[in-house]
Amino acid sequence: MSEVTSGLRVSAKRLEETINTLSKIGMTNKGSERTAYTVKEIRAKGVLTHLMKRIGLQVSIDGVGNVFGKTTQGSGSGVMIGSHIDTVPGGGRFDGVVGVASGIEIARTICENNIALRHPIEICAFSAEESSRFGVGTIGSAVVAGELNAGNIGDLQDKHGVKLGDVLARLGRNHDAINSSKRRPSDFYAYLELHIEQGPILENEGKKIGVVSAISASTRLRVRFLGRADHSGTTPMNLRRDALTAASELILAVEQICKAEAGEVVGTVGSISVSPNAMNVVPGTVELGIDIRSVHANSKKRVTNLVVDEARKISSRRDLELETAIIKEDEPVILNAEIVSLFEDVCKSSGVPYMRMISGAGHDAMKMARLTKCGVIFVPSKRGLSHNPGEWTDMKDIEAGANCLLDATLRLAA
Amino acid sequence: MSEVTSGLRVSAKRLEETINTLSKIGMTNKGSERTAYTVKEIRAKGVLTHLMKRIGLQVSIDGVGNVFGKTTQGSGSGVMIGSHIDTVPGGGRFDGVVGVASGIEIARTICENNIALRHPIEICAFSAEESSRFGVGTIGSAVVAGELNAGNIGDLQDKHGVKLGDVLARLGRNHDAINSSKRRPSDFYAYLELHIEQGPILENEGKKIGVVSAISASTRLRVRFLGRADHSGTTPMNLRRDALTAASELILAVEQICKAEAGEVVGTVGSISVSPNAMNVVPGTVELGIDIRSVHANSKKRVTNLVVDEARKISSRRDLELETAIIKEDEPVILNAEIVSLFEDVCKSSGVPYMRMISGAGHDAMKMARLTKCGVIFVPSKRGLSHNPGEWTDMKDIEAGANCLLDATLRLAA
Repeated sequence: MSEVTSGLRVSAKRLEETINTLSKIGMTNKGSERTAYTVKEIRAKGVLTHLMKRIGLQVSIDGVGNVFGKTTQGSGSGVMIGSHIDTVPGGGRFDGVVGVASGIEIARTICENNIALRHPIEICAFSAEESSRFGVGTIGSAVVAGELNAGNIGDLQDKHGVKLGDVLARLGRNHDAINSSKRRPSDFYAYLELHIEQGPILENEGKKIGVVSAISASTRLRVRFLGRADHSGTTPMNLRRDALTAASELILAVEQICKAEAGEVVGTVGSISVSPNAMNVVPGTVELGIDIRSVHANSKKRVTNLVVDEARKISSRRDLELETAIIKEDEPVILNAEIVSLFEDVCKSSGVPYMRMISGAGHDAMKMARLTKCGVIFVPSKRGLSHNPGEWTDMKDIEAGANCLLDATLRLAA
Repeated sequence: MSEVTSGLRVSAKRLEETINTLSKIGMTNKGSERTAYTVKEIRAKGVLTHLMKRIGLQVSIDGVGNVFGKTTQGSGSGVMIGSHIDTVPGGGRFDGVVGVASGIEIARTICENNIALRHPIEICAFSAEESSRFGVGTIGSAVVAGELNAGNIGDLQDKHGVKLGDVLARLGRNHDAINSSKRRPSDFYAYLELHIEQGPILENEGKKIGVVSAISASTRLRVRFLGRADHSGTTPMNLRRDALTAASELILAVEQICKAEAGEVVGTVGSISVSPNAMNVVPGTVELGIDIRSVHANSKKRVTNLVVDEARKISSRRDLELETAIIKEDEPVILNAEIVSLFEDVCKSSGVPYMRMISGAGHDAMKMARLTKCGVIFVPSKRGLSHNPGEWTDMKDIEAGANCLLDATLRLAA
């Protein structure tokens, strides 16, 4: 690891142009529409390969449509800078694009300054990072990491019943091509990612860079309270078996339990379905969707158990039936300590106010951590908004992030 | 008022036959389907007129399709026995039908025993008692009572956009016919109604007859909490403006406030709509539909104010926007004290266990109270079920109710 952080700096103007070029593809008055494998997303990848070639990168596209651009300098294992360019429906201009565009700008800055590289630098735009089309996120990076293969992903369907296997086949990608997209650990020296925070912490704390130490994972619970639908006028309060008052107790319990965890766990009741959902009927059945996240697997497990216990107590006290099911239980990912320190050093050296933090959202780095040492930095999201046309990060913050990423890349690769 | 309660008794067998005859029209495997002014409901009215004529009643149908059958005996103001034969979608066999069938059986019993009548007895099946088609209930009785007229009801639409005015026009009922359906107070000596309880109180108290002293009315509130939709993973618990946790506090407050009213008021949050309602997004907006009922207008007003106050406190504490709107505010109806005593006397005389109670649901008697002295009795509903194919009342309970109604009718009319 050399100490060449020199005075090298990205061009904020070019970086902004690249962000604009990519983010305007699929832009509508309801936000960005570059859903995975749609015409707009494929067009954006075409523009991306053009940008990569123009700065002299060797471009390749794998069996799931991940786009790679590698410097000709350096040999052996590479330092990859990755993120994604697909969006949720009605998404923002920065989510994913900022990371890919920064990678391009960093590669261009290094190439045009003829910096000698020990390790090649490889820029990547992973496919289908957003789960909005096929219900599963980080598909591209999971295939690269060998966590998913052609067999796993072929039958994933979008809301129109279109299978991912058929989508890829129409793009000329058969099972073999998909499976050969898996990469080996020896291909990588490190993986770095710059992303918008998608939360309000940096803005709230007045910091410009978040150095991510871990990516939290979620447990998703489905809880159903089964009471009795009764006439709202004729049923005395003390003879009701109201599923919605029970659900309300649990919603508040989730908040209380997670607040007591002092920042270690977040818990959200985001979805609710009430039956019959009529103003003049006492609710008979309520189903809640609960999302519990933490970077600490044990804390997450404990909170999940507390929530289920509380649901049992409530249903027993209120004489309701209860059904609970864990529908997803992922493992948190601890990012590489060496890279965390490297990012912190770089921030200190350049005098950028930073903080160590965790990521509450999933990122491609989570999958790449199976293959190599990974690091992620965040730049601030105004008001924490994301997956929303109102998503915003100031250009000077993106520039600071890109320069931090440039410095870290040089320390690893040069 | 004479004391001819003699030993006259209805025939339980014939009463059951009448109930079966009416309730099987429109019966499906998902319950009874005799929505107002549909083919099935009109067929049931046809059968009803046939039954009325067969026992010698003078039949007439007014401008909103209310069916009347009047004894030729007696003169001047009449004692009306009324209810309805329309159902909610997927309704039960007893709601409404029990009252109309009992009226028929009572008229038949009186006629075939050649009982001398001072006042004629008039049996009535009111149209559109259920609000399920046009969003407004007790339409037929409200027109008779002069509360609604052709102008008010003509533009009421069902979910297919069909207007009630057009429905009635197709049945040959123009504006004049509708408006001439209004009746005068002098037409009536009293109005009596037998209905199923649609609640669990009689069963719970082990009583066979409920003598209704008042019919409660509802205030309907719409409450919206406007917070901020945030990422469920990236937003710390203390930086959230979660509309669903706020709504949960209000749902529990409604329950608490109404429980503290010791049976005077019932309150229900029956409907909830959450946006965006996704497991991985902190709820941004929640709308609640709240129904508050009481027979005491003041208590209802006070509870409504307490609920709105509580919503204000919650939204202020949680930094949310709040919108509240009263979308309906009806007046409770106190039934005639003389008729309440009469029903109680009759129950005592015949040794039927009874209790005085209020009605939490609306009934045609509520409208008829504008014209004449009204009384209502309830028979038990198994498990309080109503508006449901599982609705059930034992035949022996219906028989006891019909005999109580027969005795009261004789005391008033003979």
